[in-house]
Amino acid sequence: MPTLLEQEILSQPERIAGLLDAELEHIGRIAAALPTCDYALIAARGSSDRAAQYAQYAWGALAGLPVALAAPSLYTLYDAPPRLARALVVGVSQSGQSPDIVAVLEDARRQGRPTLAITNDAGSPLAATADHVIELHAGPERSVAATKTYTAQLAVLAALAAHWSGQPERLEELRRLPDQLAAVLAGRAAISARAGRYRAMTQCLVIGRGYNYATAYELALKLEELTYVMAIAYSSADFRHGPIATVAPGTPAILIAPSGRTLADMRALAGELRRRGAELLVIADDADMLALARTPLPLVDGIPEWLSPLAAVLPGQWLALQLALAKGLDPDTPRGLRKVTRTV
Amino acid sequence: MPTLLEQEILSQPERIAGLLDAELEHIGRIAAALPTCDYALIAARGSSDRAAQYAQYAWGALAGLPVALAAPSLYTLYDAPPRLARALVVGVSQSGQSPDIVAVLEDARRQGRPTLAITNDAGSPLAATADHVIELHAGPERSVAATKTYTAQLAVLAALAAHWSGQPERLEELRRLPDQLAAVLAGRAAISARAGRYRAMTQCLVIGRGYNYATAYELALKLEELTYVMAIAYSSADFRHGPIATVAPGTPAILIAPSGRTLADMRALAGELRRRGAELLVIADDADMLALARTPLPLVDGIPEWLSPLAAVLPGQWLALQLALAKGLDPDTPRGLRKVTRTV
Repeated sequence: MPTLLEQEILSQPERIAGLLDAELEHIGRIAAALPTCDYALIAARGSSDRAAQYAQYAWGALAGLPVALAAPSLYTLYDAPPRLARALVVGVSQSGQSPDIVAVLEDARRQGRPTLAITNDAGSPLAATADHVIELHAGPERSVAATKTYTAQLAVLAALAAHWSGQPERLEELRRLPDQLAAVLAGRAAISARAGRYRAMTQCLVIGRGYNYATAYELALKLEELTYVMAIAYSSADFRHGPIATVAPGTPAILIAPSGRTLADMRALAGELRRRGAELLVIADDADMLALARTPLPLVDGIPEWLSPLAAVLPGQWLALQLALAKGLDPDTPRGLRKVTRTV
Repeated sequence: MPTLLEQEILSQPERIAGLLDAELEHIGRIAAALPTCDYALIAARGSSDRAAQYAQYAWGALAGLPVALAAPSLYTLYDAPPRLARALVVGVSQSGQSPDIVAVLEDARRQGRPTLAITNDAGSPLAATADHVIELHAGPERSVAATKTYTAQLAVLAALAAHWSGQPERLEELRRLPDQLAAVLAGRAAISARAGRYRAMTQCLVIGRGYNYATAYELALKLEELTYVMAIAYSSADFRHGPIATVAPGTPAILIAPSGRTLADMRALAGELRRRGAELLVIADDADMLALARTPLPLVDGIPEWLSPLAAVLPGQWLALQLALAKGLDPDTPRGLRKVTRTV
């Protein structure tokens, strides 16, 4: 009997296809209906905050819209909500329950700003607070670790970027994505066979840049939740500003390096890490990049860089699942975690 | 002969006093001269990016100004700078040399936006690009790890918040700070005596929230650079969303918990961590909070929460220095790092 987590990881191509069928036109109507704003403020926690990080690149590059990540503590702890003139205010939450995220949207309404909720529960307090609601259509997520709701959030944020870009080919690329995600997951047996090698790993670096900065953080979070490995995420740019000092022979490092504008920088970093003796696991489609890895985690050709975070997270999710199993851990119920975390 | 790092750590109270003498009025004139903006976009890397994180809270809470952290890769890798209407654009960089930070300010000028550089080098490319320049007056930083330039950046960002707040007592609090910083450093011998206990530590959690979210990240960076420990920073809110699963008996965790709005939440987290058997190091002034620690890292009474990041980082810097010495490492020249990192 496969674990819930395995079922949910493998369901992602179909879920994304269903989401696009159900919501892509609705998202287009919302994108057109929202008033012009000078920037977006996104409130989110945990994996949803990683999705917001993706929006910083997707909305910035495709729609020219600057994205600020909200500091919910300003609302709940300091009673000092900032002025939100000219902001579009967005809450991203699987459950739609976290009081601090709801507080940011409530304040935005008081300030008369347009609000958007992206959530898996249209009946949640977050959805009730927002002017517009986009549902994730991911079905109930029964595993504690977020997988299918994370990629669904990325798909919604990508769809908004595509609509705002005014470039019809972006929507076409998005529609082709589910088949590409299925093709990536079809290669999972090779990853399963490698998981045992990392059974004794206690710490790990996860490095990505640009669109995949978010992927690095999300995979670090999956490794922490599922395998109790201390995983540290960095952008390759920040990594060279100090943390590279931690690398010693044998240090495991997962590099997220799909084809695109970040590939040259990631390849240079891979070289530096190999000279220091690091053990590289590489998520990539480029054969030369994969050849630098001790453990290649292959993607498929033809995924545009702006959508690569939806694909690149999959081999990492699968690795985290297999590593949990190799360590004898229960991937569905990590120690001391609940599905809904209510932070104030 | 004390290391350069020791000299630079101990120089901070005097450097901050000198900075306030030299720049506080000048900062007031800049604060008044800048046009009203709807939000600030701050571009920074490494420790400077941690200082920008502090501004997100200080400018948000005291001045009502939302802060977005720039994604420099949008400029340098993706050739897709976002629209910056209504934004104040700020570059924070010790050296003022990093091409990606300069690129953000150059684009802001092209878009006709007001720009501000905060740097230790008034002759740097960053300073040359900006409308307004605030110097750090930290003197040459000869150690690779940033200490005195980091607290100087915090002081400048705090001074801007104080001026914008329109509350004269905030400026008074800032002027009292150098003596309080000296009092914190006066307690350093007790920290030196504890460093040997952590000689074999390979990983460590560092947790703070609100104003001290930045402190957690900055201390994690110091531990990585100076002691090669894999240190992971979290806000206490995000920590409960998954990473808490990594905590096992003996896991070292540094908690940054000065008096203020975050103390109750940090105390609750300390209880959870103790139940899981974590080894707590606690930076705090509150006696009850310090009593929860295996290793207390005391602050002094009376530091207002909004300025506490300048004080709370000091025991952590000192611990990182002493731990490097206890491990036989050279704190002035960590392996493989250069003082100026030029990222594009």
